[in-house]
Amino acid sequence: MTEPAGAGSVGPGTDAGPRSGSGSGERVAIVGSGLAGCLLATLLARRGIEVTVYERRPDPRVTGPERGRSINLAISARGLEALDQVGLRELALSRALPMHGRMVHSVTGEPGRPAGKQSFRPYSADGSQAINSISRAELNLALLEAAASTPGVCLKFSSRLTGLDTDTGTLTFDAGSGPAEAKADVVLAADGSWSVARRSVTFRPGFTFSQDYLEHGYKELTIPAVNGDFALDPDALHIWPRGSSMMIALPNLDRSFTCTLFWTGEEFAALSAEPPAAIVGHFRNVYPDVVDLMPTLAEDFALNPVGSLATIRCWPWVHRGDGAILALVGDAAHAIVPFYGQGANCALEDCVEIERCLSSAGGSWTEALPLYAERRKANCDAIAEMALDNFVEMRDKVNSPVFRAVTAGRHFLERRLPGRYVSQYELVSFSTMPYSRIRDRMRRQDRATVLAAAGVAGLAGLLAAGARGASGALRRRTR
Amino acid sequence: MTEPAGAGSVGPGTDAGPRSGSGSGERVAIVGSGLAGCLLATLLARRGIEVTVYERRPDPRVTGPERGRSINLAISARGLEALDQVGLRELALSRALPMHGRMVHSVTGEPGRPAGKQSFRPYSADGSQAINSISRAELNLALLEAAASTPGVCLKFSSRLTGLDTDTGTLTFDAGSGPAEAKADVVLAADGSWSVARRSVTFRPGFTFSQDYLEHGYKELTIPAVNGDFALDPDALHIWPRGSSMMIALPNLDRSFTCTLFWTGEEFAALSAEPPAAIVGHFRNVYPDVVDLMPTLAEDFALNPVGSLATIRCWPWVHRGDGAILALVGDAAHAIVPFYGQGANCALEDCVEIERCLSSAGGSWTEALPLYAERRKANCDAIAEMALDNFVEMRDKVNSPVFRAVTAGRHFLERRLPGRYVSQYELVSFSTMPYSRIRDRMRRQDRATVLAAAGVAGLAGLLAAGARGASGALRRRTR
Repeated sequence: MTEPAGAGSVGPGTDAGPRSGSGSGERVAIVGSGLAGCLLATLLARRGIEVTVYERRPDPRVTGPERGRSINLAISARGLEALDQVGLRELALSRALPMHGRMVHSVTGEPGRPAGKQSFRPYSADGSQAINSISRAELNLALLEAAASTPGVCLKFSSRLTGLDTDTGTLTFDAGSGPAEAKADVVLAADGSWSVARRSVTFRPGFTFSQDYLEHGYKELTIPAVNGDFALDPDALHIWPRGSSMMIALPNLDRSFTCTLFWTGEEFAALSAEPPAAIVGHFRNVYPDVVDLMPTLAEDFALNPVGSLATIRCWPWVHRGDGAILALVGDAAHAIVPFYGQGANCALEDCVEIERCLSSAGGSWTEALPLYAERRKANCDAIAEMALDNFVEMRDKVNSPVFRAVTAGRHFLERRLPGRYVSQYELVSFSTMPYSRIRDRMRRQDRATVLAAAGVAGLAGLLAAGARGASGALRRRTR
Repeated sequence: MTEPAGAGSVGPGTDAGPRSGSGSGERVAIVGSGLAGCLLATLLARRGIEVTVYERRPDPRVTGPERGRSINLAISARGLEALDQVGLRELALSRALPMHGRMVHSVTGEPGRPAGKQSFRPYSADGSQAINSISRAELNLALLEAAASTPGVCLKFSSRLTGLDTDTGTLTFDAGSGPAEAKADVVLAADGSWSVARRSVTFRPGFTFSQDYLEHGYKELTIPAVNGDFALDPDALHIWPRGSSMMIALPNLDRSFTCTLFWTGEEFAALSAEPPAAIVGHFRNVYPDVVDLMPTLAEDFALNPVGSLATIRCWPWVHRGDGAILALVGDAAHAIVPFYGQGANCALEDCVEIERCLSSAGGSWTEALPLYAERRKANCDAIAEMALDNFVEMRDKVNSPVFRAVTAGRHFLERRLPGRYVSQYELVSFSTMPYSRIRDRMRRQDRATVLAAAGVAGLAGLLAAGARGASGALRRRTR
């Protein structure tokens, strides 16, 4: 095995490569040291499997975290359950801010003098449940440290994958100072939405693949702390639903909020051509209650990039070559839009499932990986769909009287029929019920409601027709 | 401009590259000399635009056609209309065999002694319309000769595109003896379903892309001529619908038929492991009326590859860089499954639309190409959907009594209401009405039918309820 030249190596006291000392003798490579890559490495190494993790970026413990565009994320039951497997649940919660509901911001006031109004909607019927705002970089660092401190994990930084040949089991890298190669029998691609490992199979016959972009992009802005305190209620995910677009804000530990605009490309383009005063003026009209809490608004708006939002679906997730077996994990297999706060949660669940399958397959990768893929595919398709649907709900419906009435009605039913009637949001965020089962349950629930309503309406119609028929007969007889 | 080393050059007496002598001064490159590439080159050159066509294969006029897997295709109104633009309509028809309808082959006979039954269903109400079976290689050669003989077209063979940079307007090739480069201001990618030009933009942010494979693959077989004559009626497209799968056969000029099996991967795999006698035995059960017309069946089945069937959708089709504008054309923009016989017809229509847009944009490529894309996208999405739907119809419904009754009913309506009621098949195959308008028209027609049926049923229900109510009232009064 050729080590990538110049790659940093932080292993558990060994530099001898993953083959030596491995019980099964299989060389396992994980591509990417993001949330999924680090969790997977830790889970596998704790089973006695030696793994090498290849990461394109330098070691964030040395260089500090890369300033990414996605600053915080919401971790909920599934992510916490997965973190629990490696003893990180409490650490994560201690560095997170719970959000017990949505704070919906609407526009009131007279024309020309817009004002804002806030309204809190709890996520759960009893108000006790919360999703948790946490810094992606900080969570990643905690997982990286867990991986690095687990015997059997070898971390190789600054190793950007450039090619993968499953027939020879060869991974090629650009390792800064030049190309390098490594060999592996098992390649677990956790290299994200734009997975380079996935590209090695993207144009193979039979590989079903789609990348669907929203017409909306996103741009991050900031609401700093005011006199050392949060400028808005930190116990909520703040939403400014505006029909075709929206803004959200999540609290950070430093008492700032990270705001994210979800606007169409045209909306961004229209305002980007305007001078700072016009930008601030637009925000004063559309987001009147926070514009004065954003002192760097015009500058942030001009400087921060617009990110794109895509759903990626593909199949199969597992590819066997003569020399190696490749499995796609997390965003590399199923990138989703962020509107259910489930991207990271879902990726961490993948890792736990891989370990579970490996267990039930007695350590056989060729059995375990297809099993993992079969078990996860429908679930990941379901959350991808729910995440897309939730965008419409958040930006459009969340503020409508009908939606509020339905939500209130659901919470009433949840309180009256605990366990029997639970909302989709609660099942997704506060349980580990498989996503596809949640969707099926919701469809049955909706169908039953529609049928019941149709039944009542139909009965009423028949009765009315009968009454008309009877009164007609009566009229005829009395004429 | 660097010419690809070793590339054959068959231009109209010039080797000086496309820039010299071009009125607009824009260097136009077409990638691919398939049906679309050749037609487009001819149409553009006739407008006075010099074009260079880059083709990865050697010149088929020298080497003979590459033995591809798709031997014949059905050309109909749209393709003929496009060929007419370059004077090739009559030539194509003279080398084609008209098919006036479907010959549906079903299985009859006692258990253990299967026999076949044929039934002819005309494509049009009056039986006069036909689609035309033609050799893809022969049609391509006719279009290539038309391009080669048009002044302003320069053909470069054995030039396999390996990269395209729209920012510098650079195309790179593997030209057999080594890499080579060319420059262009306008790149028209007509390089097919697995377009290399498209790959240069596939992973750009915002490029929506999907490739969806059917679980069915295809394999070609042959029915040779018997005593110098066709073994089956040559005036029909033969179909053996078998529910989840099917076989079809199209006539060739040499009086053979090319058969195509459309089976699932599992069906192919199950039979591939069997000995020749078992293969022939299976065909005797499933396709009893033709098994004896296929003397090389077992050998063909073992040797011929299984092709895959995919639908490719993407957007945008036009990409502007600092150095060049790229547009995707034909299968490179919208590969579809073959079940409506429209892939080639649709690609040829694209070329005519590009020329039309260039005309209405006064020769401006930057105006014409986005216009072409906008005009074609919805139409190509519509035929992609109809082609997928037609697979179900062909393999499953075409032989059902309900489908036959509906088709007979449609033809009755078509004869009674000529022009006002025309079937989808006829509008797709025998008119040049835009595909998306056909689909919309069919949806309206279907909705009207359903509404009418529902109206009748609802009226009947009300009358019945009224009668029941009246008789109930009567009973009450007479009790």
